[in-house]
Amino acid sequence: MKLVIAIVHDEDSYDVIDSLTEKGFQVTKLATTGGFLKSGNTTLIIGVEKDKVEEVLDIIKNVCKTRKTVISAPSPVMGTSGVFVSNPMEVTIGGATVFVIDVDKFEKF
Amino acid sequence: MKLVIAIVHDEDSYDVIDSLTEKGFQVTKLATTGGFLKSGNTTLIIGVEKDKVEEVLDIIKNVCKTRKTVISAPSPVMGTSGVFVSNPMEVTIGGATVFVIDVDKFEKF
Amino acid sequence: MKLVIAIVHDEDSYDVIDSLTEKGFQVTKLATTGGFLKSGNTTLIIGVEKDKVEEVLDIIKNVCKTRKTVISAPSPVMGTSGVFVSNPMEVTIGGATVFVIDVDKFEKF
Ligand code: NI
Ligand code: NI
Ligand code: NI
Repeated sequence: MKLVIAIVHDEDSYDVIDSLTEKGFQVTKLATTGGFLKSGNTTLIIGVEKDKVEEVLDIIKNVCKTRKTVISAPSPVMGTSGVFVSNPMEVTIGGATVFVIDVDKFEKF
Repeated sequence: MKLVIAIVHDEDSYDVIDSLTEKGFQVTKLATTGGFLKSGNTTLIIGVEKDKVEEVLDIIKNVCKTRKTVISAPSPVMGTSGVFVSNPMEVTIGGATVFVIDVDKFEKF
Repeated sequence: MKLVIAIVHDEDSYDVIDSLTEKGFQVTKLATTGGFLKSGNTTLIIGVEKDKVEEVLDIIKNVCKTRKTVISAPSPVMGTSGVFVSNPMEVTIGGATVFVIDVDKFEKF
């Protein structure tokens, strides 16, 4: 038995819990906030058999991995034609930090 | 030294913290919510000497184990005599998931 | 890779997260409340390379260790001169409980 502790971004937490639960994994969500510059994290703990660890890691990776997205800039800027245009901006979102820990003993009562 | 991570139902959390504290165990309660269909869980972490792990597990088992209870149905139903009667219903409550983890190093400052 | 789980007093949590973050450690703060008589704790988890564990423990110790401080008594008492004077009182504050756990596998996605 292994314990997977995953720190994911809040915006991915719904999707990753959904994906893990659909595959039959039991997920517990701890309320979390990151350190400075890192607000908005959620910590998940998942108890899993050794031979399913890679499956759990793949699900987390697929849903939460760092990726780029294009957003509109918060404030529009004056275009050369004198019209306000939104300024598309590429930002990086997501990312997960995952620890896999060995479990001495696992009990369900 | 071992670290016991116990995920218990909210309704049992007061009693199990009380029982563990009375026996001298130091319990830390993390705010928790379960995944889908699993709302209302509390995660406890308890640092404990190796030879006391079984005592901690027994306390958690005694307080939190899955058991049946009879509740009244949420809405009363019309009995054959024309009087509203409550409808007793057997439900399963409680249950705990417990991980015991080895601790490399334990410090109190 | 090691996982450091530190239970610190709320009043020290800002300072210790600040000190750890300044040294480049990634800290995740879990919302926490203590058991009875232990309200006001915060649990931090810090993933750290083996050879940096002592540095992390030193930072936690320096910021959070149990220490005495002098506070004014909650209600002033009548001094011998007939003037109300505050009553300085020595109290113990701080303290941290730290578990270091071995990590089987560490991933960043
Ligand atoms: Ni991030
Ligand atoms: Ni349950
Ligand atoms: Ni304390």
